[in-house]
Amino acid sequence: MAARTGGSAVPRLKDVAEAAGVSVKTVSNVVNGSVQVAEETRARVQQAIDELGYHPNVMARRLRTGRSGVIALAFPELPSPYFAELAVEVTAAARRHGCTVLMDDTGGDPVAELRIASGLGDPMIDGVILSPLGLDQAELVDRERPIPLVLLGEADLGPVADRVHIDNVSAARDATQHLVDQGYRRIAAIGWQDPSPRATAQQRLQGYAEALESAGLQPDPALFPPVRSYFRPDGAAAMRRLLKLPERPDAVFCFNDLLALGAMRAVHEAGLRIPEDIAFVGFDDVEEAEYAIPSLTTIAPDKTKIAELAVSLLLERILHGDSAPSQFLVPGYRLVVRESSRRR
Amino acid sequence: MAARTGGSAVPRLKDVAEAAGVSVKTVSNVVNGSVQVAEETRARVQQAIDELGYHPNVMARRLRTGRSGVIALAFPELPSPYFAELAVEVTAAARRHGCTVLMDDTGGDPVAELRIASGLGDPMIDGVILSPLGLDQAELVDRERPIPLVLLGEADLGPVADRVHIDNVSAARDATQHLVDQGYRRIAAIGWQDPSPRATAQQRLQGYAEALESAGLQPDPALFPPVRSYFRPDGAAAMRRLLKLPERPDAVFCFNDLLALGAMRAVHEAGLRIPEDIAFVGFDDVEEAEYAIPSLTTIAPDKTKIAELAVSLLLERILHGDSAPSQFLVPGYRLVVRESSRRR
Repeated sequence: MAARTGGSAVPRLKDVAEAAGVSVKTVSNVVNGSVQVAEETRARVQQAIDELGYHPNVMARRLRTGRSGVIALAFPELPSPYFAELAVEVTAAARRHGCTVLMDDTGGDPVAELRIASGLGDPMIDGVILSPLGLDQAELVDRERPIPLVLLGEADLGPVADRVHIDNVSAARDATQHLVDQGYRRIAAIGWQDPSPRATAQQRLQGYAEALESAGLQPDPALFPPVRSYFRPDGAAAMRRLLKLPERPDAVFCFNDLLALGAMRAVHEAGLRIPEDIAFVGFDDVEEAEYAIPSLTTIAPDKTKIAELAVSLLLERILHGDSAPSQFLVPGYRLVVRESSRRR
Repeated sequence: MAARTGGSAVPRLKDVAEAAGVSVKTVSNVVNGSVQVAEETRARVQQAIDELGYHPNVMARRLRTGRSGVIALAFPELPSPYFAELAVEVTAAARRHGCTVLMDDTGGDPVAELRIASGLGDPMIDGVILSPLGLDQAELVDRERPIPLVLLGEADLGPVADRVHIDNVSAARDATQHLVDQGYRRIAAIGWQDPSPRATAQQRLQGYAEALESAGLQPDPALFPPVRSYFRPDGAAAMRRLLKLPERPDAVFCFNDLLALGAMRAVHEAGLRIPEDIAFVGFDDVEEAEYAIPSLTTIAPDKTKIAELAVSLLLERILHGDSAPSQFLVPGYRLVVRESSRRR
């Protein structure tokens, strides 16, 4: 690692080319995100870039290409580990294309979302990947500076930008079906919002209701108490309400892992056992789900794929303009069964 | 909230002034981070800003002041909830001064750290708050574009920039002393690094050793197995090694909460009880510590204060230049005792 700590021997394009056994032009194509490089060659060049600690000279590249290689990633809730883990994947995917990612925590504020969708007025920002929460379609269409934009998540803002999202209805149905299959019958849901549910809440409640109905069970509004947001304290508070019902649930599907982890803590404090007394399924598969005691069954969206698709769509817009029709891409997910829902 | 969803009625400086009952000049002072505004007035203006959803027009302000109001926050490990929680605090503190924060995950790579310490060459970035990991002092002194910079954390890069950090030796001593006070005698530590320990590892091991020695206990190298990094899997792996010792520890001080949460999972999988068989203390007080089963005793650095001080120091440099000597500020911490270390 002498090259990285020496300070003077900053690696250059031709060092990378030499190490990878390719031409300088090929390294340049990889760094600038050109799509004309074979995957095997790209991997070899990337390995050389990583090993040498090479970073393109931003200003020089900018003068050459008119692009800075900086993209912005904006999400509504930084304390949410799902967004943090997704941001790590987006940063890694962008780096493979020689891009730097700057992140912006909008707090879900539509004004902040609109500002970042216009690139903050920063001419260095080539494009934006935004996970919107408060923004509506009209605002997005009218934004000040329509730079390349890719949306993440289930909020449907129409065909104004490319969008990447998993099938939330289907995933919520699978999560609930798993609890039905394990023999649970009084299945609650934590994550509904009232009076103004987000798209996330609507789609996940729909999948939950569909699974119950196909099992001949009736969705009972007492079993999906509303929450304000999707953090641990919200899950704990909703669970405490469920535990006060005349007949308490025997299982809970939570619309994200943090809600589940908060709810599990409330069950623990009530002296009940998981899953013997109450089983749990979450959504997101954050790392904490695997390490929790008990470990948490959850829906695992393919975060690596989501990030790759978002970055590829954005680079396509940056490199080839904004005229093609909007694309909607739907990567997969899987159900990961762990201790919190497994009948012994 | 009509003003926020309407799309057309974007609030302006004079709307804020009217709502707060102050002059436009005063609102402008608050937005531009001037230090000449009384705290009570600043709070009233901020409340009006929040309620109206006002955001200063970045480009207009820039033309007026020569500053963009964008600061960058760079940290080495985004998946770490400690950094995510600190980033939320920094974003909130910056917003109180009318600034926008863009975040950069450096991965601890010295080349990436050096680039962000020069503001990525982006003229929109007024200053940088950096939590360095790989960077050394010589590189920092020689950086391309010496924009205002504040360092976070225990890495000592000399008097090249302002720095905010808690007293790690003292905090580690308190954490270990708590275990001694609870009657534990064979106290392990997880977080040491070999052969190239970070400042974090050195200072926390020193505090641990000092507490043991003052209790007449001898630090035993078998009881502080090295780890590669500070994530849950590292903690689990180190714990599995400790459980194989001829005489296993009765308590563990972990150098961050993620290590502790990983180690606790390994203890659970080995069929042992916490704290009856093995007690735990962590470091960071991430939200997960409060909700874990059992909940985790930990050192809670004052994150709000760290963020406030870092933003204030940075704005001071941005507004009044770089000539004053570097400042080192040391905010406080507290020990939060929870289930993982409490003798019944």
